Amino acid sequence: MNYPLNNIKIVLCNPSHNGNIGSAARAMKTMGISQLILVSPTVTLDDHSLALASNAKDVLENALILDSLDQALSDTTIAIALTSRKREFSHSLSTPKEIMPEIFSSINNNEKVAIVFGAERTGLSIEQLEKCNRMVTIPGNPEYFSLNLAQAVQIMCYEIYSNYNPSLEHLKNNITKASAIDNQGILNHLDEVLKKTNYYKHKNETRIVRHLQHIIHKANLERDEVDLIRGILRRIEQKIV
Amino acid sequence: MNYPLNNIKIVLCNPSHNGNIGSAARAMKTMGISQLILVSPTVTLDDHSLALASNAKDVLENALILDSLDQALSDTTIAIALTSRKREFSHSLSTPKEIMPEIFSSINNNEKVAIVFGAERTGLSIEQLEKCNRMVTIPGNPEYFSLNLAQAVQIMCYEIYSNYNPSLEHLKNNITKASAIDNQGILNHLDEVLKKTNYYKHKNETRIVRHLQHIIHKANLERDEVDLIRGILRRIEQKIV
Repeated sequence: MNYPLNNIKIVLCNPSHNGNIGSAARAMKTMGISQLILVSPTVTLDDHSLALASNAKDVLENALILDSLDQALSDTTIAIALTSRKREFSHSLSTPKEIMPEIFSSINNNEKVAIVFGAERTGLSIEQLEKCNRMVTIPGNPEYFSLNLAQAVQIMCYEIYSNYNPSLEHLKNNITKASAIDNQGILNHLDEVLKKTNYYKHKNETRIVRHLQHIIHKANLERDEVDLIRGILRRIEQKIV
Repeated sequence: MNYPLNNIKIVLCNPSHNGNIGSAARAMKTMGISQLILVSPTVTLDDHSLALASNAKDVLENALILDSLDQALSDTTIAIALTSRKREFSHSLSTPKEIMPEIFSSINNNEKVAIVFGAERTGLSIEQLEKCNRMVTIPGNPEYFSLNLAQAVQIMCYEIYSNYNPSLEHLKNNITKASAIDNQGILNHLDEVLKKTNYYKHKNETRIVRHLQHIIHKANLERDEVDLIRGILRRIEQKIV
């Protein structure tokens, strides 16, 4: 099966800072996205770009450099303009989160999707914006909003990757969760200990047990934590006179 | 009512680069978060920090500088450690998206929540990690993952702000959507035009009308777009011989 994020192109229109292009490449690769298109860059890629790309220089080396946004978008079904300004057409404005279902519906269907960013200082021109069929704005503080090009690329790529692979399974150890019977075992054991220590005297036993059960449920124990607790309870039991 | 994002503290442990602190402040303010705590920074805030903070220098100026993480966390109910390494305790690892409901449940209840970041090169120490009661990892490419401190702060703050205020209403123009009767008016008008041009001859009229209706629904028209289309249809009608 194809890797769906290969259907996503990050399109930078008229980028003017080498460093930003490198940082964008790094942000892309960190989020598993590799197709970079530069439309009429006003700089050439240099050592500074490569330095900021860190180990994502393959993304830079494979970047397509094109003369026009039309070329970049020719095979895309969805072209998403990133914008932060209030626009006349703003009825179709979405947040990154709102546009995700549509992006995934397209790329899972093997259609191409472009995410289009404007020049650092000016953003997308009206002409560039009109070539896109969707508009996205990253929500933020209405009184102060300062995201540079690479940061905007990073947020979009983060949102895409998090939706593509929301799980952290590869980072997790193999864990066996406690079963209901494990948890009940702890509760019963604890109950015995409390009886032996006369803890319940003049107290509402049912209520206390229910409360302890609630705590055990919330702790969401693992198998080896059950063993630890049972071991502690056994030791305490031995020491009760 | 209190502004709930004021219950969030961004805690940077042992930050060692002035620039990162400034960039983090800027990322925070852009996402409406202002409480910054520096635990034992190995640098002092300087002009470089202020430069990178851009207009977020108020966040830097109000930053608390503390000697220990314990002090920073003393009044928090949830302390979230950001980590990217596989850890022994990784059973409780969440993504930023997974932890959001818990963050909002706390801050809306006026409890304090800390998001805790480690030093640039080393991340959080085991001791720092153990003082936190939640762990979060930003998902990304398992083969290449490169986020600096300020970028990690930015992604967390973006996720928080987007969950706090998912709407872009303040950016949208006032729009009146087309009603069902507006859409039906277009369809009826189009139908008349097609009849007058004999377009339906030898065709399945019902099916064509249904198809056109479907297109009109998908276009999600606004009131003034309805007026535009009706105007065009009137002009066409006049010119049909």
